[in-house]
Amino acid sequence: MKKYIAVDVGGTQIRVAVFSETSIIPLDQRKIKTQGDGKTPVERLIGVLTEIWPKEGQVVSIAIAAPGYLDPKRGIVISAPNIPGWKDLHLSDILTEKFNVPVYLGNDANLAALGEWKYGAGRGHRDLLFITVSTGIGGGIIMENQLINGANGLAGEIGHVIAVPDGPMCNCGKRGHIEAVASGTGISRFVKEKLANGYPSVFPKDASPSAKEIAEAARNGDELSNVAFETAGFYLGRTIADFLLILNPSILIFGGGVSQSGDLIFKPLKASLEKHIVSPEYIKDLEIVTAELGDDAGLLGALALSQSM
Amino acid sequence: MKKYIAVDVGGTQIRVAVFSETSIIPLDQRKIKTQGDGKTPVERLIGVLTEIWPKEGQVVSIAIAAPGYLDPKRGIVISAPNIPGWKDLHLSDILTEKFNVPVYLGNDANLAALGEWKYGAGRGHRDLLFITVSTGIGGGIIMENQLINGANGLAGEIGHVIAVPDGPMCNCGKRGHIEAVASGTGISRFVKEKLANGYPSVFPKDASPSAKEIAEAARNGDELSNVAFETAGFYLGRTIADFLLILNPSILIFGGGVSQSGDLIFKPLKASLEKHIVSPEYIKDLEIVTAELGDDAGLLGALALSQSM
Repeated sequence: MKKYIAVDVGGTQIRVAVFSETSIIPLDQRKIKTQGDGKTPVERLIGVLTEIWPKEGQVVSIAIAAPGYLDPKRGIVISAPNIPGWKDLHLSDILTEKFNVPVYLGNDANLAALGEWKYGAGRGHRDLLFITVSTGIGGGIIMENQLINGANGLAGEIGHVIAVPDGPMCNCGKRGHIEAVASGTGISRFVKEKLANGYPSVFPKDASPSAKEIAEAARNGDELSNVAFETAGFYLGRTIADFLLILNPSILIFGGGVSQSGDLIFKPLKASLEKHIVSPEYIKDLEIVTAELGDDAGLLGALALSQSM
Repeated sequence: MKKYIAVDVGGTQIRVAVFSETSIIPLDQRKIKTQGDGKTPVERLIGVLTEIWPKEGQVVSIAIAAPGYLDPKRGIVISAPNIPGWKDLHLSDILTEKFNVPVYLGNDANLAALGEWKYGAGRGHRDLLFITVSTGIGGGIIMENQLINGANGLAGEIGHVIAVPDGPMCNCGKRGHIEAVASGTGISRFVKEKLANGYPSVFPKDASPSAKEIAEAARNGDELSNVAFETAGFYLGRTIADFLLILNPSILIFGGGVSQSGDLIFKPLKASLEKHIVSPEYIKDLEIVTAELGDDAGLLGALALSQSM
C-alpha cells in the first residue's frame, strides 16, 4: 500500500501523520514539541519521522508545511524566525538523504489554502483567497485551480502589504502593514496604547490583554474593546478590497484565532469591504467563510501537495 | 488554411487583423475610428469584420480585446465607460450570431499581459505582472504560465488599489487609488495644483500640461516637473511592493505612455520599491522592463487567447 507522510512544523509543535492514498483520516500520527531534549528542531523532526515510519507499504514522499520564507522548488527554508537555526536550511536535501524519498516543502499558509481548497471550505472553487488572522497575518492563493507559488515560492505573503502608510511598526520592522494593525498582536497593541492614554475600559490602565480577552470584553459591552475590533475590521476590509481587484476570487476563507471572533471582526470587515470596493461585481457572488480544517489545514495541505506531485 | 481574427477595441479606434496559424505578422488588417457615420460602435465593428472577412480559408474564431469590466466566460461587456452604449452588451452572442464562429472576449490589459508573455518581453517567464501606466493604470497577471482571469474575469484591475488612503479623487469616484496619483492624469493634476498654488515652474500659473509635456519640462530641468515624476514613482514603487508580496512575479513589464519616460519614472519607482519591500528575496532576481509589443499588445494578446482555446 502506498503511503504519504505529511508534516506541519510550527514554532511550538511539530505534527506528523501517515496517510493512505484514499483517505484524509491518518493511519498514524504524532505530535511533539519543536524544541527540547537539547536537540535541534531538525534532529527532533528526524526522530519523530523515524518513529512513525511505516513498517509496511511504500512511502511515496514526505511533504512539509513550514512557516517563514521558503524556496519550495529547491526545498530550502530561507528564514523561519520562530524556529531556532532554520535559516538557509536545505531541509529537503537533509531528509531525502536520511529517508531516501522525495521531500516536498511548502509555506504553511499556502498549503493551508491548498488544504481548504481540496478538502475544506473551498471545495469546488476555482479562485480562492485564504487569509489567516492570528498573531500574524498570512495568506495563500489558488487561481484557476492551481496553488500560486510565485517565482520564488513567496506569493501570498499578504500580512506585509501596507494598510496605513507610515502607521504602527510591524513585527518585520517596517511600518503600517496590515499585520501591524489587524492581527491579534495589532488588536492587543491598539488596546494597550489607548489604556495607557487613559481611555476608559474594563481593563486596568497598565494591562496588556490578548486579542481573545479583548473579544470577550467586547462581547460584554466594553466600548474600547469593540472599537479595537471595529478598527481591525475596517483595515482588513479596506485591504481585502485591494486583493479582490487584483485576484477576483469567488471565496475568501478566514483561518486563525482572530477569525473565531465572529461578527466582532466580520461585521466591520464586510462594511469596509463594501465601502471601498470599486465595483459591486467583485462582491456580488463572493462567499466569505471561516476555514473548516482548523489545525489540520497545514497537514492536509501538505498531503494535497504530495498527491499533486 | 486556418485563420484567426483578432480585434482590439479602444475608445478612439478599433483595430482588426487576420492571422494565419503560423505567424504574428497579419495577413490583413484594418484600423477604423470607434465612432462616426452615425453608426454605433458595434455596427462599425460588424462593418469592418465583414470587410476584412477572408474570401478563402476557414476562420477559426474571433478574439476581442476590450476595455472596462468584462465577463469573459459569458462574453459580456459589463461596462466600458469610454465606448458609448457598451453596458451589459452581449458582444460574443451578437458576433457569433452574425459570423457563425466562436467569439472570445478579454480585458485589454489582461490580453496585453498574455501577448507580452507569449510574443513579447515576458517570453520564458512563468510568473509575470504587466502594468500599463497611461491616462489610467491597468494590469494583467500571468501565474504558473496561465492568464489569471479571476472568478468573473475581473482580476488585474490594479489601477484602483489604494495608494494614499483618503487621497486625491480617482476617475472612478473613490479616493486615493494608484491611478489617481501615478497615472498620466495624476501627474498632470499634481502639477496643475502646485502651479495654482504658486509653485515656480516653466509652466504658467494656469496651465494644465500633459504628462508628456511635464516629462519634457523635467528633462529640461524644471524642478516642479521632476518632483511630479518623483512623487508618481514613489507611489508606484510602494504599491508595487504590495503586488510583489501577493504575486511574487519574476518580471514586471511596463506598458503605456508614462512608461516611455524612462529614468524619470523608473528611478524613483525602483528606489521606492527597494525601500518598501519586506524581503530582498522579492527583488533580487526581478526583471523590470518596458513592453515590447507597444500598440500591438492587445491585438496579439487576443491572437494568443484564440490560439489557447
